[in-house]
Amino acid sequence: VDALASRVSGFAGRVWKIGADDPRRVLHGLKVGFALALVSVFYYTRPLYDGVGGAAMWAVMTVVVVFEYTVGGCVYKGFNRATATVSAGAVALGVHWVASKSSDMFEPVTAAATFSRFIPTVKTRFDYGVTIFILTYSLVAVSGYRVDALVAMAQQRISTIAIGIFICLAVCLLAFPVWAGQELHRLTARNMDKLAGSVEACVEGYFAEAPDDKRQSAAPLASATNTKAEGYKCVLNSKASEDSQANLARWEPAHGRFAFRHPYGQYKNVGAAMRHCAYCVEALSGCIRSAEAQTPEPVKRYLANSCMRVATRCSAVLREASSSITAMTAPRSLDFTVAEMNTAVQELQSEVRELPSKVAEEESAQLMDAVQLF
Amino acid sequence: VDALASRVSGFAGRVWKIGADDPRRVLHGLKVGFALALVSVFYYTRPLYDGVGGAAMWAVMTVVVVFEYTVGGCVYKGFNRATATVSAGAVALGVHWVASKSSDMFEPVTAAATFSRFIPTVKTRFDYGVTIFILTYSLVAVSGYRVDALVAMAQQRISTIAIGIFICLAVCLLAFPVWAGQELHRLTARNMDKLAGSVEACVEGYFAEAPDDKRQSAAPLASATNTKAEGYKCVLNSKASEDSQANLARWEPAHGRFAFRHPYGQYKNVGAAMRHCAYCVEALSGCIRSAEAQTPEPVKRYLANSCMRVATRCSAVLREASSSITAMTAPRSLDFTVAEMNTAVQELQSEVRELPSKVAEEESAQLMDAVQLF
Repeated sequence: VDALASRVSGFAGRVWKIGADDPRRVLHGLKVGFALALVSVFYYTRPLYDGVGGAAMWAVMTVVVVFEYTVGGCVYKGFNRATATVSAGAVALGVHWVASKSSDMFEPVTAAATFSRFIPTVKTRFDYGVTIFILTYSLVAVSGYRVDALVAMAQQRISTIAIGIFICLAVCLLAFPVWAGQELHRLTARNMDKLAGSVEACVEGYFAEAPDDKRQSAAPLASATNTKAEGYKCVLNSKASEDSQANLARWEPAHGRFAFRHPYGQYKNVGAAMRHCAYCVEALSGCIRSAEAQTPEPVKRYLANSCMRVATRCSAVLREASSSITAMTAPRSLDFTVAEMNTAVQELQSEVRELPSKVAEEESAQLMDAVQLF
Repeated sequence: VDALASRVSGFAGRVWKIGADDPRRVLHGLKVGFALALVSVFYYTRPLYDGVGGAAMWAVMTVVVVFEYTVGGCVYKGFNRATATVSAGAVALGVHWVASKSSDMFEPVTAAATFSRFIPTVKTRFDYGVTIFILTYSLVAVSGYRVDALVAMAQQRISTIAIGIFICLAVCLLAFPVWAGQELHRLTARNMDKLAGSVEACVEGYFAEAPDDKRQSAAPLASATNTKAEGYKCVLNSKASEDSQANLARWEPAHGRFAFRHPYGQYKNVGAAMRHCAYCVEALSGCIRSAEAQTPEPVKRYLANSCMRVATRCSAVLREASSSITAMTAPRSLDFTVAEMNTAVQELQSEVRELPSKVAEEESAQLMDAVQLF
């Protein structure tokens, strides 16, 4: 029983944390509940309400299926649902009218629509629409023979769906909207900051290693550095969420400082560049972990300064880019910071080139010291 | 008009290629059409058919929404739809019965269910189920007052959905099934092969560079090497598809050589390790591209052999692992191949350590040659 109780409380704690980390998630739940309550009120007060089979069902269904976390998702689904319902109804009625019965065209149309979901463009923009197209087409094709009854029913159905979509969009847009574009923007800036932090922490952690006696006291500090150094891992797998957010953001109307044709595609490019950088950090930290025992101390000491300088300059470039993204202004001194970084890189390269002779010198000096001791 | 025609033909070509690359996609479209035709036949021949509003609608809707490309996806959606419908109906009727009207509990239940989608476990396994739960709960809650009518309707609804799910599963399982587990398995083995190819091609391409006069004739060969060298890029972004396939594969019954509790979770670990390797290849090829002009020719010549040996041995290890995955047998000589690779790495390391003195020797020898010329 104790084990069960601790598991339940552990689960409750995790759930609470999910809500506490981002209260907008709780808010989203309340918004969905509110939208559904709104639909049900709308239909309770109307005389055309006649049980679950009636029109209310379609409005409820639309709200449940269309309401998404971000405004972009909501618009995407709403638009897809509306256009797909209308176009599938039109096609089905057309086929019906031409062929007087549509069962001959049933299989080819649904098969073609299903196949179209494998086309990348359709997949990213109209996947949901194709589902609804197949659904509506099948329903109309299965439904029967008389076209005039179908037309009347279609009108009612479409108006109900329109009400559902309207309520969704209104609640989603007016009550604490979550914009996919803004999320994407913040994610990009945050990832860039994390990358800067981990470039710095990774190199610092390697060179700033205290001698053995001091290491114990530095443990808490080291773990903080470690968390910072692992920041790049968020960047490694960010492609999926970036892509989906960029796709949804396209559907959003202009809001705040995000204008109508905000270049959301560019975020993907920036993300790809950041991932490229994160791959390098990953490879670098892999090298550091495996090579730690092998690098001779004098070499490490000799290169420490210039390596640290390169890391600091590199993260300065990333931080400046990130803050210019956050502020949505053109970076002022980025050229200068990049030039500084390049200088640091060249210094490091020349030091590496001189390394063999330096090491030899130092070794002979040490030998001399040792000789003098005698 | 010409531009339009070429665009249309280009699009048609791309669509054709999607189908030709994997004919199972076309087959999937036909399967969906067939399942829908089956449902409609089933309802055409039954007297309870009464237009779109009737029971047929729920069966059609179930088939459209539940039918997925892989068997795992189909089972996942079918199971979720069935359990969510039943449980949401039970909860709604329970609330209805206790409170005599459920509108007080409407908002909290839907809000809580929506919020639960943010919990990772629920998200990966029951996301679709939660949608259906909210939908069914809202429909029942909105639908009215008399419990006895509700129960009768619920029975009919559930039997219809069951028929829909049964038809889906039958068609999906019996006609050319696509198993998510098998896809995952093949993807893993293929990615490993690609990785092996690109490790080899990347190092070979760097060292096997012909002198300028031969380079022209080697261009087609070089582009083939390039495609091979870029193989690792598939591995970089494979996380999302691996995760989703592993999640779906869990729902699949035992099939072929995939037993009941096949360790699909392990594929994720293998995938993570492969991505780690791909990050290193990416960093390496980045270095090669930028450093090409800088490495002095003698150093390159001196290290070529041992570098090539490391690359060959490394890709041999990967190839052997991949073929043992494909054959689903324990690798026989993998330990030996790994030991060979480690030897090659140690040789390379010792050569790198001796590099400075060797280069100095060679330079002085060249100088001597030059002197002798005079």
